[in-house]
Amino acid sequence: MSEVFGGAFDGSFHRLPIRVYYEDTDFSGVVYYANYLKFCERGRTEFLRALGIHHAELHGNDLQGRTAFAVRRFEGEFLKPAGIDDLLTVETRLAELRGASIRMAQQVLRGDAALFRLTVQIAVIDGRQRPARISDDMRALLSPILATNNSA
Amino acid sequence: MSEVFGGAFDGSFHRLPIRVYYEDTDFSGVVYYANYLKFCERGRTEFLRALGIHHAELHGNDLQGRTAFAVRRFEGEFLKPAGIDDLLTVETRLAELRGASIRMAQQVLRGDAALFRLTVQIAVIDGRQRPARISDDMRALLSPILATNNSA
Amino acid sequence: MSEVFGGAFDGSFHRLPIRVYYEDTDFSGVVYYANYLKFCERGRTEFLRALGIHHAELHGNDLQGRTAFAVRRFEGEFLKPAGIDDLLTVETRLAELRGASIRMAQQVLRGDAALFRLTVQIAVIDGRQRPARISDDMRALLSPILATNNSA
Amino acid sequence: MSEVFGGAFDGSFHRLPIRVYYEDTDFSGVVYYANYLKFCERGRTEFLRALGIHHAELHGNDLQGRTAFAVRRFEGEFLKPAGIDDLLTVETRLAELRGASIRMAQQVLRGDAALFRLTVQIAVIDGRQRPARISDDMRALLSPILATNNSA
Repeated sequence: MSEVFGGAFDGSFHRLPIRVYYEDTDFSGVVYYANYLKFCERGRTEFLRALGIHHAELHGNDLQGRTAFAVRRFEGEFLKPAGIDDLLTVETRLAELRGASIRMAQQVLRGDAALFRLTVQIAVIDGRQRPARISDDMRALLSPILATNNSA
Repeated sequence: MSEVFGGAFDGSFHRLPIRVYYEDTDFSGVVYYANYLKFCERGRTEFLRALGIHHAELHGNDLQGRTAFAVRRFEGEFLKPAGIDDLLTVETRLAELRGASIRMAQQVLRGDAALFRLTVQIAVIDGRQRPARISDDMRALLSPILATNNSA
Repeated sequence: MSEVFGGAFDGSFHRLPIRVYYEDTDFSGVVYYANYLKFCERGRTEFLRALGIHHAELHGNDLQGRTAFAVRRFEGEFLKPAGIDDLLTVETRLAELRGASIRMAQQVLRGDAALFRLTVQIAVIDGRQRPARISDDMRALLSPILATNNSA
Repeated sequence: MSEVFGGAFDGSFHRLPIRVYYEDTDFSGVVYYANYLKFCERGRTEFLRALGIHHAELHGNDLQGRTAFAVRRFEGEFLKPAGIDDLLTVETRLAELRGASIRMAQQVLRGDAALFRLTVQIAVIDGRQRPARISDDMRALLSPILATNNSA
């Protein structure tokens, strides 16, 4: 099997394997709609971790210069339901890199079939929850991975 | 205090009080982003329940004519964070009533301050997950509550 | 209806009404087992809130004298399943009050039928996660509500 | 890295790697207590999957002979907290195999440090939620993996 714990990049796309467990489903028999946002957040976290950016460093202390990410807007579309035991892939790419925010485009797939699509607008904030510019260090990490095809 | 368990309609608006618990927050100190979708789903459920429409009747058996709701698309916008112990209100209104789908507009507020806004496109489906027309009975329940001001 | 938002004390017992939503269930058709711990935590929080003890005051800053509660052990027993739309009651009582810990006994009921029972051992900790003695102020709040019948 | 997606057996012990995400934590800064039950359920599911037993086959249709697992009792003990980004291991073993139930002993570890211990009593039930005997097929799968040291 090709599922790598924590996922990996394939070009500009980060792919994270996710197994559907009891906790993810609801009584209608399929994955509960809000849980796709959890899957996508895991995907973005692993996307950042693979680039060397960790939440534990972003949060958790008051050192100057620390910044964090905060979701400002999202748009989601449900195409097909997922069920218990399904093996899913969260595909994440950086669609836009601006001065103080980024846009990420994500898909949850089962095999080649897209089940859910999400676009997320994320602001960079400082320790007081105020908008902050993306640091040069972070920009240097994100720029090379910016998807060249911004169609989504 | 005016918080009513299960909420109530005020004209075309249904308002559901929600208390923020440990389970709703994350280590950044505020409510986790996906949990606003849970709050809004509770709001839509109580909106329907107040009109006499129950999930237990919509799902759970194979009788002819049974239908259920399935979220197809959503758009969300985060305005301010909510924290532990906050008393929130989920405000829900029916923004559009079509042949086989509805659109609901929701806000999560703390007092008069809007924290989160969500628009949800919901399809009516039959027991085989196929699109279905909204029944005359359900239309008769929903039509009177259709918000006259669809600006949101 | 007698459901009071946030619940209320009846003698030594605090009762909190809870509605079962989509998010609480799993594909087997009933409430997911871990979610009873969420319900019980809401019950304990409302138990404390009704006595004037708030999480937001317990956590969140480094002022001297601040303490928090941390679950150390629990024992749970499942008697009957709960389903979507069920109206449940979380019944919470203080079963034991010691120098640096408390024991709470809880039940989740549907009508008069007990569905789940939980006993929780809770330590009081200071801001550095070390065991701390229960303050005189907190003891004065908790003592009167200590259940006289510790049979459970 | 030695983390295998979905985990693997090491003798009688099944070990599943789990990454702590935003969704798992609460505002106190550590993993929310009920989420350890989610982690342990994932561990039991992967334990069973590695033996060839799948939930999707256990549930979901009315064929004769189908059985499912239902948690009856659990006892948990919290030793140390886990935090965001932590890489955890869920260690699962079969502690007892009876006629109509099993007992599983689980630990959540970070490196060699045990953070949480859980003992779970699980009944086998039929499609009508009634107790059922463990089938010969399932017994043949479970017997070889029964931990020889039942001390926990």
